Amino acid sequence: MGVGDDGAILNPTGPLVLTTDTIAEGTHFSRPLMGLANIGRKAMAVNLSDLAAMGAQPRAALITLQLPFELTFDQVKLLFLGMKELASEYEVAIVGGDTNRWDGPLTVGATLIGSHYPSDEGRTGFWSLGGGRAGDGIWVSGCFGGSILSHHFQFQPQIHLAAHLVSHHGITAATDASDSLAHDLSQLAIASQTGFEIDSRLIPISEDAVKQSASTGRPALEHALYDGEDFQLICCVPAGEEQKIEQDRELPSPFTRIGRLTETTSFTIINGTGIREPLIIKGFQH
Amino acid sequence: MGVGDDGAILNPTGPLVLTTDTIAEGTHFSRPLMGLANIGRKAMAVNLSDLAAMGAQPRAALITLQLPFELTFDQVKLLFLGMKELASEYEVAIVGGDTNRWDGPLTVGATLIGSHYPSDEGRTGFWSLGGGRAGDGIWVSGCFGGSILSHHFQFQPQIHLAAHLVSHHGITAATDASDSLAHDLSQLAIASQTGFEIDSRLIPISEDAVKQSASTGRPALEHALYDGEDFQLICCVPAGEEQKIEQDRELPSPFTRIGRLTETTSFTIINGTGIREPLIIKGFQH
Repeated sequence: MGVGDDGAILNPTGPLVLTTDTIAEGTHFSRPLMGLANIGRKAMAVNLSDLAAMGAQPRAALITLQLPFELTFDQVKLLFLGMKELASEYEVAIVGGDTNRWDGPLTVGATLIGSHYPSDEGRTGFWSLGGGRAGDGIWVSGCFGGSILSHHFQFQPQIHLAAHLVSHHGITAATDASDSLAHDLSQLAIASQTGFEIDSRLIPISEDAVKQSASTGRPALEHALYDGEDFQLICCVPAGEEQKIEQDRELPSPFTRIGRLTETTSFTIINGTGIREPLIIKGFQH
Repeated sequence: MGVGDDGAILNPTGPLVLTTDTIAEGTHFSRPLMGLANIGRKAMAVNLSDLAAMGAQPRAALITLQLPFELTFDQVKLLFLGMKELASEYEVAIVGGDTNRWDGPLTVGATLIGSHYPSDEGRTGFWSLGGGRAGDGIWVSGCFGGSILSHHFQFQPQIHLAAHLVSHHGITAATDASDSLAHDLSQLAIASQTGFEIDSRLIPISEDAVKQSASTGRPALEHALYDGEDFQLICCVPAGEEQKIEQDRELPSPFTRIGRLTETTSFTIINGTGIREPLIIKGFQH
């Protein structure tokens, strides 16, 4: 049963993942700069990214809107269509929500419900932050940095990659890079009670990071490590599994090894000249 | 798995109900008037009320906060404790959420997950708005009107009554009176493709409605019909079941018949002198 009653009904056949994220005007977006369709799309995308990071198949969504009084019906429709487009792409049913109008900024929230993939019957649980073990390779999707230039609202949540990895490879832990590559990887390592060592020369740096570097004067690597809002997957892979991934020709998006979890709980980066340095942790603060 | 990962994991053994409601400063509450603990409590209570209206057992909650920058840690704690108190009372696990600080008003949202009661194995579905049939009695919990004086934030969601009704009586349709008794009953009748006839002399009028009437000069009955935010249950009961309810000495709260669903799709009220009149529908507009 969908929209209209006091609640929506699900008939799960196994465990579920629930995740919720709200984006707010002034904090996460500027309405005129980003446009309403992109705002709606992003509210759906950040939640889909969380499901990808759990290795969960997206199933249903509840939407929560705080709408400024001045928004017209057509503007709200635009917002909804942005959301709906991505929901349809990943077969997410919008089953309910809550809408209020008010004398305040726009907020767009979604609660997403995910399940195990059908191909995933043998698995005992969803991916979590705390499953990593010392020696695991650290693998990332896509590339990093300069999200402010566009991909913070145009990014593709890594659902297809997660679905492929769930079915074909053993992932021990995962998260998505929302606050920053450095910050989110450190959260994973802390939860897994490990440290990590990453090689700056292996980190996929985006064209936007290079562009940002030209305008800020800071190295593109810094943008890749600290900008955040890339919404790429960060996965841990047992050493014995890595060759299988390297040889996998059916990975739906780029997937690169950038380092390894370590027994010692420090955070280390190998710089451009091969020297080990402590990695400073920072990221987007909500 | 609870708070801290990209998502929370549930292991349902049957169908689930999901409901989400957000309360916002300026729309649903004034911060200084209501106090932070009461605001937190109400955000949980309105969602629990929706689960009661579905005949669902509350199980888990996700919390979404937009916190104005000026709130101190102790104030946020107060907000959370108000929420937590009610969650504990009804054994709801707070499993995750999303918190942002911003330069805007306070909003407090919750997504609640409910299941069937264990006592309820034979039932095929949750209560909905659309299950009512012409001839069913219309029963309500508690009393109505004048919620603005206090019970709009101090009300007890009708979880215990719903649990009792689920186990002992056949309810065909239900909702909770959030917008107003008149409005929510009309929504139920429309969804059930019926009309209704209620008797003004049977409607339980609260002391607060009487007090409000003294200050507004409008009849207490009007306050009971239209004020809203009573969060009482409105249930439909097949005529054959009504005697059983009348004789039930274990009902955990007052439960009163106020009228009947009708074949004709009009909305009728019997006034104080026994005359049938069309009922005007209005209620709280979000």
